[in-house]
Amino acid sequence: MTIILGDNQYGKAETHVVRVTRDGSWHDVKDITVSISLAGDFADVHLSGDNSNVVPTDTQKNTVFAFARDGIGEIEEFGIRLARHFVDEFRPVSRARVHIEEQGWERIRDQAFVRAGSEKRLATVTCTRGATWVVAGIGEMVVMKSGGSEFHGYIKDRFTTLPETTDRILATSVLARWRYSTTDVEWKKTFDDVRRLLLETFASKHSLSLQQTLYAMGEAVLEARSEVCEVRMAMPNKHHFVVDLTPFGMTNENEVFYAADRPYGLIEGTVVRDDAAQPGFAW
Amino acid sequence: MTIILGDNQYGKAETHVVRVTRDGSWHDVKDITVSISLAGDFADVHLSGDNSNVVPTDTQKNTVFAFARDGIGEIEEFGIRLARHFVDEFRPVSRARVHIEEQGWERIRDQAFVRAGSEKRLATVTCTRGATWVVAGIGEMVVMKSGGSEFHGYIKDRFTTLPETTDRILATSVLARWRYSTTDVEWKKTFDDVRRLLLETFASKHSLSLQQTLYAMGEAVLEARSEVCEVRMAMPNKHHFVVDLTPFGMTNENEVFYAADRPYGLIEGTVVRDDAAQPGFAW
Amino acid sequence: MTIILGDNQYGKAETHVVRVTRDGSWHDVKDITVSISLAGDFADVHLSGDNSNVVPTDTQKNTVFAFARDGIGEIEEFGIRLARHFVDEFRPVSRARVHIEEQGWERIRDQAFVRAGSEKRLATVTCTRGATWVVAGIGEMVVMKSGGSEFHGYIKDRFTTLPETTDRILATSVLARWRYSTTDVEWKKTFDDVRRLLLETFASKHSLSLQQTLYAMGEAVLEARSEVCEVRMAMPNKHHFVVDLTPFGMTNENEVFYAADRPYGLIEGTVVRDDAAQPGFAW
Amino acid sequence: MTIILGDNQYGKAETHVVRVTRDGSWHDVKDITVSISLAGDFADVHLSGDNSNVVPTDTQKNTVFAFARDGIGEIEEFGIRLARHFVDEFRPVSRARVHIEEQGWERIRDQAFVRAGSEKRLATVTCTRGATWVVAGIGEMVVMKSGGSEFHGYIKDRFTTLPETTDRILATSVLARWRYSTTDVEWKKTFDDVRRLLLETFASKHSLSLQQTLYAMGEAVLEARSEVCEVRMAMPNKHHFVVDLTPFGMTNENEVFYAADRPYGLIEGTVVRDDAAQPGFAW
Repeated sequence: MTIILGDNQYGKAETHVVRVTRDGSWHDVKDITVSISLAGDFADVHLSGDNSNVVPTDTQKNTVFAFARDGIGEIEEFGIRLARHFVDEFRPVSRARVHIEEQGWERIRDQAFVRAGSEKRLATVTCTRGATWVVAGIGEMVVMKSGGSEFHGYIKDRFTTLPETTDRILATSVLARWRYSTTDVEWKKTFDDVRRLLLETFASKHSLSLQQTLYAMGEAVLEARSEVCEVRMAMPNKHHFVVDLTPFGMTNENEVFYAADRPYGLIEGTVVRDDAAQPGFAW
Repeated sequence: MTIILGDNQYGKAETHVVRVTRDGSWHDVKDITVSISLAGDFADVHLSGDNSNVVPTDTQKNTVFAFARDGIGEIEEFGIRLARHFVDEFRPVSRARVHIEEQGWERIRDQAFVRAGSEKRLATVTCTRGATWVVAGIGEMVVMKSGGSEFHGYIKDRFTTLPETTDRILATSVLARWRYSTTDVEWKKTFDDVRRLLLETFASKHSLSLQQTLYAMGEAVLEARSEVCEVRMAMPNKHHFVVDLTPFGMTNENEVFYAADRPYGLIEGTVVRDDAAQPGFAW
Repeated sequence: MTIILGDNQYGKAETHVVRVTRDGSWHDVKDITVSISLAGDFADVHLSGDNSNVVPTDTQKNTVFAFARDGIGEIEEFGIRLARHFVDEFRPVSRARVHIEEQGWERIRDQAFVRAGSEKRLATVTCTRGATWVVAGIGEMVVMKSGGSEFHGYIKDRFTTLPETTDRILATSVLARWRYSTTDVEWKKTFDDVRRLLLETFASKHSLSLQQTLYAMGEAVLEARSEVCEVRMAMPNKHHFVVDLTPFGMTNENEVFYAADRPYGLIEGTVVRDDAAQPGFAW
Repeated sequence: MTIILGDNQYGKAETHVVRVTRDGSWHDVKDITVSISLAGDFADVHLSGDNSNVVPTDTQKNTVFAFARDGIGEIEEFGIRLARHFVDEFRPVSRARVHIEEQGWERIRDQAFVRAGSEKRLATVTCTRGATWVVAGIGEMVVMKSGGSEFHGYIKDRFTTLPETTDRILATSVLARWRYSTTDVEWKKTFDDVRRLLLETFASKHSLSLQQTLYAMGEAVLEARSEVCEVRMAMPNKHHFVVDLTPFGMTNENEVFYAADRPYGLIEGTVVRDDAAQPGFAW
């Protein structure tokens, strides 16, 4: 038996860059947080502390700032530029992954902005010497349905106390990430369309379970966007319990809810084309 | 020398209620978190554990749910109803304070909603037997100016290294709370107007310091809204540092910024009418 | 009616300093986060953006680092040195407050350490030209009693559903801050003793209410430490609910509890000597 | 092309249970948070909302409480009991994963406790019909070395500005998880020993890079504990920057450091026996 090094990666996480682009007095701002992971020929640094193959994470941070100098563009593009750089420039690096989170800003006027919600736009780009994978996404998109949601017909055992219901609140914080089958994509246009499809499907699909809603959301994206081959979603079921007001002589026809923090259900699922290429290092 | 009980209060904090109001298939949702503090004749519970004057915090929570049954309305109104209840119903309670935070939701369709940003609408209502104070507010309103902000002319001493600048990013998360001189207010209309005034003044006021911006924001509210007599604000200066790209042979004309988390400046100030009534227990 | 500037202060918040002191290969580390607030003659910066009275928060940060160069010592001492500096050096500054949070580290060996729990040691020092106030404290000291706690005899009204109990879990996160009547204090020794008294009293005092426990804890400190004249505490009642296992044919004699996050009770109280000097700007 | 369901799982997350065990007036407390994920024959619930194969997450929560009634024991054991239950009782469930985080408490006296630090003890148990995998771990173990750490000899390119150093602070928050090759383990004894080995190796290993330290820590565990076949670690490099005090006419011989929050390095690595069984569903 020998002890060996297994999977490993390293990089600079959460470099927070704001890029201002000026067109006279008209400004645009781009607000992103960039995390980089490199994998490759890094056995020596682990075994003996020989750093001769190591691109310091400090240099990675500098590179993010320097690349931002030439403009960021869509985060998928910026991720590709960065990931490709690390793989192409440094022989020991066989795989680079760049994860970017973008915070949106709404314009108040030409040079002033207010934060646009808690939602994050996401991109994860992975490059090897010969391949590029792009996964886009949206995080912390918090949605709620006050109607059109049921839950019944499930397994009952000796630990079951949950009453079946044909009318409940369905609330969740959507994390959706989708894999592109190509890099020939209008990134912003597709993102906007996927977001719209996710929201509309959540809203319109009559729900018998959160799993059904999740699947319908992913399916809607795949049906509409041929450049997307796989959608992975995680949706916590943020429970809203009907408060029992009968001790106070009151009815409660699904009007007053207690919104609980923990525990919560966690529903995770994937919707995929059956002819999608293997995901490789995409995720 | 004797050891005595000083100021004290207790209550249930962060009861999270969601209230759905149905008009056929058209739903409205109200999402609030309610915190209650009661003060009064509570010496015995501290000194001997005699609870005969204590309204349990569990009962306070139940009361929030029961009152929500009749509708919430604007949070200032709901706060008044609740605070008044505790003072009027329970002889030992001489002062009740109800703090409410409201999370906004944007409609997707008739029964579906998506969370409207990270901003919170705030209300703090304090009642004694004979008086009512209402403080409204807004929290976590994150704003940024990419132009129209300078900082120079400050004191220099042996620890000063900050360069003066006539062009910097000004970014902050606004916490603004304002005291009403009356309870005869159109709460929603005034809130919307105050929010607009705060945003517009932040955006339009050329800034020589964050203090100046803060004062101008409060002043704009007081000038426009006669029912408001005092505005208190806390604004962290979320520093955005120009990245030095000269080691890479690049210029950086205020285009690429590093957004730092800590430390941050913290600017706190009050703008008030000189004839405002004393604040009493308002804050 | 005129609009005027009311209370205001500003400063650098959360400068995180780690100071290593070397005695050969034996190291000591001090890990503190420093927040500074200055008040004084700052009308002009608010009204016109004239910064000529302003000590930039960046300079405040530099000052923290420079002062740390000469050693930190106990945080109360370091706070006094810093607060005194700002008041003495800068004419416009009439009041300086320095709040410090210290994170403890346990030694593994001569130059290696592991973080010592979630508790924070606290100090808040306020200086004016002629006076100095020192408030010390402890935060996030999370404690639990699985016995020796009752709650009954409280007011019942139409919204009461809580059953009375003679055996419950009492759990809280203690924030205790105490004011010294002097600066002639052995800071570390007193801190250690106060922490011990708080813990021992929490543990040994049979509790009929969290208020009674809070008062007893403060009283124990005042009885034992003559240099302390006032103790202020905030203690959330972190509810642990007995799970109803009867649907599963099981008893639950206070053995299995669900630990809830929100809502929670919040108990705040002050224990003070009747001959304590007025607190002035201490808090 | 057809759209199909890919990988999916669901369950109740973060059920927070406190279990008190009484031996006369002597109490023991166990404080755990349990998260469950089930995978199996769940196509119908996704495609049509047919819940007939679904064990509700509410039932999963109830099961946790009911099982806690019989005692929790070591978290690896409790995880095995729970995961095995879901696989054995419910035909559609082909795989159950139970992740438990335990918060430690130190005794003050027989029935009173104070929280023991921020560290968490972790266990992840995965069961299929025929197999059981146990991964134990430790999280949020924050450590720092003020000496015995260097970083130099790395790749330099046009974006490199980091100076090489033979003396730096090395600080990290260790997340270590290790896979057992058997379930015939003295869980507590092995956990304690692994924790000790991780701490001692971090402290004693002279470090030329965080990767080297990480590998040495994993190697020490594998060398000492034959029942462990793989160790996975994630260690953020929590940067401590030497403050430049030369503008103030001061030296700084690695005494005063600024502790930064973001960005941070993130080092992830695996140390494994070359004859370890394939991990299967362990992680």
